[in-house]
Amino acid sequence: MLPPSRSAILLMSCPDQQGLVATLTNFVFHNKGNIIDLEQHVDVAEKLFFMRLEWDLRDFAIPEERLGERIAELAAQFDMQWALHFSDETPRMAVLVSKHSHCLLDVLARVQAGEWRVKLPLIVSNHSDLKPVAERLSIDYHYIPVTPNSKAAQEREVLALLGASNIEFVVLARYMQILSSDFIARYPHRIINIHHSFLPAFPGARPYHSAHERGVKIIGATSHYVTEDLDAGPIIEQDVVRVSHNDAVDDLVRKGRDLEKLVLGRAIWKYLQRKILVCRNRTVVFE
Amino acid sequence: MLPPSRSAILLMSCPDQQGLVATLTNFVFHNKGNIIDLEQHVDVAEKLFFMRLEWDLRDFAIPEERLGERIAELAAQFDMQWALHFSDETPRMAVLVSKHSHCLLDVLARVQAGEWRVKLPLIVSNHSDLKPVAERLSIDYHYIPVTPNSKAAQEREVLALLGASNIEFVVLARYMQILSSDFIARYPHRIINIHHSFLPAFPGARPYHSAHERGVKIIGATSHYVTEDLDAGPIIEQDVVRVSHNDAVDDLVRKGRDLEKLVLGRAIWKYLQRKILVCRNRTVVFE
Amino acid sequence: MLPPSRSAILLMSCPDQQGLVATLTNFVFHNKGNIIDLEQHVDVAEKLFFMRLEWDLRDFAIPEERLGERIAELAAQFDMQWALHFSDETPRMAVLVSKHSHCLLDVLARVQAGEWRVKLPLIVSNHSDLKPVAERLSIDYHYIPVTPNSKAAQEREVLALLGASNIEFVVLARYMQILSSDFIARYPHRIINIHHSFLPAFPGARPYHSAHERGVKIIGATSHYVTEDLDAGPIIEQDVVRVSHNDAVDDLVRKGRDLEKLVLGRAIWKYLQRKILVCRNRTVVFE
Amino acid sequence: MLPPSRSAILLMSCPDQQGLVATLTNFVFHNKGNIIDLEQHVDVAEKLFFMRLEWDLRDFAIPEERLGERIAELAAQFDMQWALHFSDETPRMAVLVSKHSHCLLDVLARVQAGEWRVKLPLIVSNHSDLKPVAERLSIDYHYIPVTPNSKAAQEREVLALLGASNIEFVVLARYMQILSSDFIARYPHRIINIHHSFLPAFPGARPYHSAHERGVKIIGATSHYVTEDLDAGPIIEQDVVRVSHNDAVDDLVRKGRDLEKLVLGRAIWKYLQRKILVCRNRTVVFE
Repeated sequence: MLPPSRSAILLMSCPDQQGLVATLTNFVFHNKGNIIDLEQHVDVAEKLFFMRLEWDLRDFAIPEERLGERIAELAAQFDMQWALHFSDETPRMAVLVSKHSHCLLDVLARVQAGEWRVKLPLIVSNHSDLKPVAERLSIDYHYIPVTPNSKAAQEREVLALLGASNIEFVVLARYMQILSSDFIARYPHRIINIHHSFLPAFPGARPYHSAHERGVKIIGATSHYVTEDLDAGPIIEQDVVRVSHNDAVDDLVRKGRDLEKLVLGRAIWKYLQRKILVCRNRTVVFE
Repeated sequence: MLPPSRSAILLMSCPDQQGLVATLTNFVFHNKGNIIDLEQHVDVAEKLFFMRLEWDLRDFAIPEERLGERIAELAAQFDMQWALHFSDETPRMAVLVSKHSHCLLDVLARVQAGEWRVKLPLIVSNHSDLKPVAERLSIDYHYIPVTPNSKAAQEREVLALLGASNIEFVVLARYMQILSSDFIARYPHRIINIHHSFLPAFPGARPYHSAHERGVKIIGATSHYVTEDLDAGPIIEQDVVRVSHNDAVDDLVRKGRDLEKLVLGRAIWKYLQRKILVCRNRTVVFE
Repeated sequence: MLPPSRSAILLMSCPDQQGLVATLTNFVFHNKGNIIDLEQHVDVAEKLFFMRLEWDLRDFAIPEERLGERIAELAAQFDMQWALHFSDETPRMAVLVSKHSHCLLDVLARVQAGEWRVKLPLIVSNHSDLKPVAERLSIDYHYIPVTPNSKAAQEREVLALLGASNIEFVVLARYMQILSSDFIARYPHRIINIHHSFLPAFPGARPYHSAHERGVKIIGATSHYVTEDLDAGPIIEQDVVRVSHNDAVDDLVRKGRDLEKLVLGRAIWKYLQRKILVCRNRTVVFE
Repeated sequence: MLPPSRSAILLMSCPDQQGLVATLTNFVFHNKGNIIDLEQHVDVAEKLFFMRLEWDLRDFAIPEERLGERIAELAAQFDMQWALHFSDETPRMAVLVSKHSHCLLDVLARVQAGEWRVKLPLIVSNHSDLKPVAERLSIDYHYIPVTPNSKAAQEREVLALLGASNIEFVVLARYMQILSSDFIARYPHRIINIHHSFLPAFPGARPYHSAHERGVKIIGATSHYVTEDLDAGPIIEQDVVRVSHNDAVDDLVRKGRDLEKLVLGRAIWKYLQRKILVCRNRTVVFE
C-alpha cells in the first residue's frame, strides 16, 4: 500500500515492557501525525519488543530536523535501539558480483524499470566479464581482481569506492569471495547476500552439487545479512522449488537461478521498505 | 505464541481516523493491561481501520463483567463494530457432512489430539454413512435426510439441534447441500465451508472434472464463510498443489483431498484464534 | 540432463494401440541409435498416445536427410501426428511487447546469459517506450502503432517482419493487443502468451484488480498458447504466490511481475526443449 | 490413472546399454500385453538405467506363475535388478508409533476411507497412549516398552510380530526410537520414516527448536527410507511451509504436523503404487 504523501518510519526494538505501544502512538497522535502502518512483534522467550511505525508527516507538529532528538528522548526512557527513515529517501546501493550474470541482470532490470526507490551508482567485480552489462546502462563498473596476496588491498580499494559513492548498503549478487571481518564491520546488517541453497542445508561452495548428491526433492535459495560466520547470518528471505531424480546438477543450477533472482529481489525490497529488524541472529521481517 | 495466562481479545473495525491506536492502547495501558499482541490494518481505498488487540488480564483493573460496557463507550466514540473474546473460552462447533469422510476424519483427529480449543458436541448429515465414525468417538450424529420437499423442514430441524447444543459456529466438511438464506442469516460469518477448487475458478459442482477439462497445471482448495451467493463468500484461506497431464480426474480428487483437509484445518484454526474480520466480501486474517 | 552429443527428438501423438512403444524403440535400436530419453503418456479417456523420444545420433544408421521420410512411413502405419527436431537447432523467436518492461527485460537477460539455445532477431511493439532497451543490445525494434482502423494493416506488417526474419515462434511478453484469427492461424501453437492471473480465474483485462476485489489469498500467472478464444488456449505453465489483506492492488502487481517472468521463462524453456504436445485444448508437458 | 483391469508392474534397474527399452517393450508386445505405463530414467553420471513398466494382463500370453522366470531370463541378459508386482496385490503394512498421534490418525483415516490398497493388521508402540485409537478400529496394538537394557529384546519381539503378521513394509509414524542395523537389514528399503525437518537440515532430535533458533523462513518435513545412518536414508518426498518471526516453536510444531501428515501420506502412496526405486542413496520416484 503506497502512503498518500511523505511519511516517517521508525524502526525500533527494546526490552518488552508495559506502555510501549501506548507511549509511541500517543507521541505520534499528540503531534498530529496520522499512523499509516503499525507492526509490532514480541519475542516472548527473549522478552524483546520490536516495532515498525509509519506515519504521515502532512500535519505533523515536529519539524523533521528536530524529530531525531525527540525520538532519542523516548528511546532513552525505554532503552530502545532505533532508526528513523523517511519514505522519500533514495538509498544508495552498490552491487558486488563475480562472473554469474543472472542476479545482476535481474537487479539491473528492476532498477531500470523503476521497481525500487534506489540509486545504483556502483558495481564492483573481481572479474571483467560483466563490464559490458554495466556500460550499456552507464553504471560505473570497477574491475578489481583478487589474489590471495592482494585480498586486503582489494578490500581497502572497494571500501574506498563505497565510501566515495556514499553507499548505504551492499548487495552480493553471487559474489564468490569471502569478505573479511573488517569489511563486514563497516556495513553491519547492510550487506545482503544471496546463497544458492536452502540454508542451513548446504552452506559453502557447490551447494547444487551437494543437493544433487543427497537426492533432495526440493531445492532453495536464501538471502541473508552477511556476518563473520560464512552463510550463517540472519536470514531475510528463502524460497524453494521442487526437483526430481530427473534433474541433473545442470537442471538444479537452472531452476536455482530463477529462485536466486526472486529471493534476492524480495530481500532488497524488504530492506528498502525498512521492514527488517535483527535480533540476535534472526530477523523480524514485517509484512 | 501462547499467552502466559488469561487474556482478552478485542476484534474491531471502524472508519479510519486519527488517534485510534493511541486511544485503544492507552485504554489498556492505563488499566494496567499488558498488550500481548496488536495487529492492525488500514484499508486505504475503503478508508476503514481494523484491529485485533490482545492483552494479559493478570493485573487488569477493569473486572471482566464490566469490560464490555467500557468498550462499548469507546466503540460509540469511534463508530466501531467490535467483538470481545477471552483466551480461555471453548467455542462450540457443529459439523455438517454428507458422504465424503476425509474432512470429517481430519477434523475429528485434530479434536481428539487436542490441537484446538473447541467442543464438538454435534455432527449432522443428510446421509447415514459416517455414523459409525461419530459413534466410535461418542459424538452425537444426527442423520436427517433431505429431499426437495423436506428441505425446509430439515433445515428447521438442524437449526433446532444447533440451538439446543448452543453451537457458536458451523463447519461444512464437504456438505453437499446448499443452505437457505434463512439458515445462513442465523450464523452470519459463522459458517465455514471448504470448496474443492481455487475459487473463483470452478465454483459449483464437480470442480475437479472442470479443472481436468481445462487442463490447469495447479489445483486448489478454498475455505470461505458461507453467504447467499454460492461459493462466493469471503475467502479465509486457500492453498494449491501442482498437477500435470499425467493426473486423471481421480488423481486430482486424491491430491485435492489432502488440500481440502489442510485448508479447512487452517481456516478453523484462524477462526478459533479470533483472527478473522470481514470487510464487505473480503477477510482480514491476521497472522 | 544435457545429451552427450547431437540427438534427434521425435514428438508424436496418435490413437492408442498395442505395439507403439515397441515399434518405435525398435526402429531406433535397429538403426543403432541410443535412446537418451523416452517419455510417454496415455490419455485413457481420449484413447490417445503421446511420446517424446530422443536418441543419440552418433552411430545412427539413417542419414539425417532421410530420417523424415522413414518416420513418415511409421507415422502412416499408426496414424501419427509428429514433428522431428534436432538438439543443435537454434529456433528463431520474436517478442511482441507493449509498455510493461519486466517480461521483456527478463527474456533479454536470459538470452544475454546464454540460458537458452535461441535467436532473438526481432522485437515488435505498439509503443516506442522500450526501444532503448532493444537498441542497447542491438536487437531490431519495430515500433508499429495500432489504432482501431490500422489494426489489420499493422498485423500484416508484423507478419511480414516475422516472415522476413524466418521466425519459428512468437512470445507475447505482456503484449496488450488481441491478435486476429488470421494472425494466430499462421503460428498454430507457436504463440506463447503470459497472462497475469491464475486462469481460468480472471481472464481479460485488469486481473490484479479483480483478484483484489474478490479477496483471494493466492494470485497466479499463466503461460499458454494463444488461440482464438481470449486467454483460453492450452495452458503450458502456471505458478502462484501467496497474498493477504495487506496487499493493495499495487502489491499484487509487484508480486505478480515476478511470477510472470518466472512462468513465461519456464514455458519458453519447455518449448525450446521440444517438451510440449497439444491435445484438444490441453497440453502434455514432459518433464 | 487407474488401470482398466489387472496389470503387471515391473520395476527394474541395470547398467545403461542400448536396446533396453526395445527389448523389454517387445517382450510385452509379442506376448500380447498392452503397455499402460512406461517411465524410464537414465542416470548419465552413474551410467544406470531405471524403468517402471506396467501392462494389462487381459490377453497376456504368459501365465502369471511363469512370468517371474521369463523376466529372470531377460534380467540375466542385462544384469538387471528387478521386482515384479501385480496391481491387485494388497500389501501388508505395520505402523510403529510413540506418543504423537497426528501421523497415526492420518494414516488410519486414509485406511478407513479406502484411499489406499493396503492392509494394516498391526500397530506397535513403546507407549500405551494410543492404544484406544487402535482399539476403536479393532486393530491390534502391541505396547512393548523400551529401556536401554531391553532394546534388543524389544526389537526381537517386534520382528516376531511383523513376521507373524506377514508384514511387507513398516511405517514409522513419529516413532522416537532408533532402529538397530539388524532390524533395518530385515526390511531393506521397506521402512518408511517421517522426519520433521527439511533434511539434510536439522537431523536428529528437536528439529523445530533448531529451526526456530536458526531463524529460517520456511520449514519442512521429509519422508525417507530408513538406513543405518540416522535421518540420512534415501529421500522419498519432502514438502515445506512458510513461517515467520511471528511463529514460536509451538507454531512450528503445529504447522509442521500438517506437513508431516501430508508428506508421509504421499510417500506411502508412492510406495504402494510401486513407483520408487533406489540408487545408491537416492530415490527415483516416478510420476
